[in-house]
Amino acid sequence: MNITRVKMARKPGEKLTVDDFRVERIQLPEPAEGEVLSQARFISMDPYLTRMMRTWQGQEADWSQGIIVGRMVSQVVASRSAGFVPGDWVAGPGRWQSHDLTASGLLRKLEVGDGVSPSAYLGVLGSSGLTAWVGIRKLLRPQAGEIFCVSSAAGVVGGLAGQLAKQAGARVVGIAGGPEKCLQMVDGLGFDACVDYHRNSFESDLATAAGGGIDKHFENVGAPMLDPVLGLMKDHGRIALCGLIAHYQDDLPVTLKNFRKLLYGAINLKGFRVHDHLQDAPQAYAELKDGIISGAITVRETVTRGLENAPQAYVDMLAGRGSGKHLVELK
Amino acid sequence: MNITRVKMARKPGEKLTVDDFRVERIQLPEPAEGEVLSQARFISMDPYLTRMMRTWQGQEADWSQGIIVGRMVSQVVASRSAGFVPGDWVAGPGRWQSHDLTASGLLRKLEVGDGVSPSAYLGVLGSSGLTAWVGIRKLLRPQAGEIFCVSSAAGVVGGLAGQLAKQAGARVVGIAGGPEKCLQMVDGLGFDACVDYHRNSFESDLATAAGGGIDKHFENVGAPMLDPVLGLMKDHGRIALCGLIAHYQDDLPVTLKNFRKLLYGAINLKGFRVHDHLQDAPQAYAELKDGIISGAITVRETVTRGLENAPQAYVDMLAGRGSGKHLVELK
Repeated sequence: MNITRVKMARKPGEKLTVDDFRVERIQLPEPAEGEVLSQARFISMDPYLTRMMRTWQGQEADWSQGIIVGRMVSQVVASRSAGFVPGDWVAGPGRWQSHDLTASGLLRKLEVGDGVSPSAYLGVLGSSGLTAWVGIRKLLRPQAGEIFCVSSAAGVVGGLAGQLAKQAGARVVGIAGGPEKCLQMVDGLGFDACVDYHRNSFESDLATAAGGGIDKHFENVGAPMLDPVLGLMKDHGRIALCGLIAHYQDDLPVTLKNFRKLLYGAINLKGFRVHDHLQDAPQAYAELKDGIISGAITVRETVTRGLENAPQAYVDMLAGRGSGKHLVELK
Repeated sequence: MNITRVKMARKPGEKLTVDDFRVERIQLPEPAEGEVLSQARFISMDPYLTRMMRTWQGQEADWSQGIIVGRMVSQVVASRSAGFVPGDWVAGPGRWQSHDLTASGLLRKLEVGDGVSPSAYLGVLGSSGLTAWVGIRKLLRPQAGEIFCVSSAAGVVGGLAGQLAKQAGARVVGIAGGPEKCLQMVDGLGFDACVDYHRNSFESDLATAAGGGIDKHFENVGAPMLDPVLGLMKDHGRIALCGLIAHYQDDLPVTLKNFRKLLYGAINLKGFRVHDHLQDAPQAYAELKDGIISGAITVRETVTRGLENAPQAYVDMLAGRGSGKHLVELK
């Protein structure tokens, strides 16, 4: 069958642009034994892909040809695997294509129809949700009375991390770009405060919001956020380093004015990767699903329609436009 | 009585020089009730003083007048405290003076004469020793078969940390400046390897010495050492950040090419300060003293004679001349 694919047109320069991508029509063969033919319904726009987009190197061999392998939720069209029948909702790795053939072992069948949107499996009920859950429950463990800070608060990981920290009793201060996003964090997600990093007064705004200093910090961005936060960390504070979105697009050194604070304040900074914590996934997903259904957890999504718009959606996501989980929806 | 004092002559510029210090004669009053008059015998040359020398700000009010308050071993000359008699050896904080008056509560009486030099109480049996012990036994806990790296290996903290890691069974790689120091680390202290950071091939030498990658790292210096080490850290490696001697003399930002490795390698970096771990001092000092007496621990000292030479000794220590514990000895 003829299908649509988005792949890299070239290796991007300093900044990723829509011209670095190409939309093309290709021929897809019939499914082989053990394979599933599925139709993409939601494709996840994830910052971590930038590094592979730039280097054309990734765990999957396809990357060497500039073929993008991301995460998606799809519906089964045809199956040569006993575990799947047409109509099933599945989540797993997939090429940025309208349809794809996948070894059935890579797919997870989703339970859809209990008040949870299938797209949630790419966000709060996917690795983003697990990431936030691990950072909060396993690493930072914010407590009542503590000041908790999270950067990229309008992102799905940051927004969920803040909600989980709030449920644990901490005072939650988010960092986001723009007054609209900040308002959403406070009014929509229940953050105690949200500081706009676009403002000239960002650093003093953050100091005011943090009051006596930050106990725990969840970092998604890198130096532009981490540096002012470091200056405000309390002694023996803890930082979970979850992402470096400000540093994925280049190989420049990372410069921190307040690096010395790690020593002077006896700060613990811990990098973590969600794939080291997959053993926690069943507990995390069960808790998060309960939270969605009960309304304790609010899911925010920015949805772009049409595969051909995926390059623009990706560039917009990197530029900080929109908030929550960034998705491309296909009919 | 008339005594000699070394104090700051001015706030230092970018680099500390001997001209930033002044030697002067001052009048010392008689001891008041509860005070001890002591004669300095060994003054500790400690990198951490640089920050106070530059800012004239420290926990002791004396710093605001440029009076240097360091650590020293002294002998009691006269006492108005029941706990001390003339001839007693004491360790504690003290001004860089030939004689000083000290509240007796700040002094620790030393047991001298069992094969341990009084000067050891400023190094392996002082806060440097406790620092190395805490970093190794409490934070990094190197294991048999692991690759352990330590920067400023020729310093007293680094040299002891390496010896303790070696006793724990790790393969120990030191970083030091110059072939002579490196030879001393291997031949004198039993390190498995020592890499000379003065060589152009430093980074590749370190990679060769580290073999399959570094499991645990004890950092005393900062970016010039931490950056290449980060590039060689194994996944889930641990770094104890103990000192930043490369960054005490200025307020410039700290730049790391390999900062991203903290995330990509899920590295744990923990700053620590010895004064947060004083509860471990009795156990640490008992073990270290046993080690010195049995010969399991080698003590290295660089001794400069005469208080008037303290400024040069301090500048030399910062410049990396000499190795082990840097002391000024007074008769």
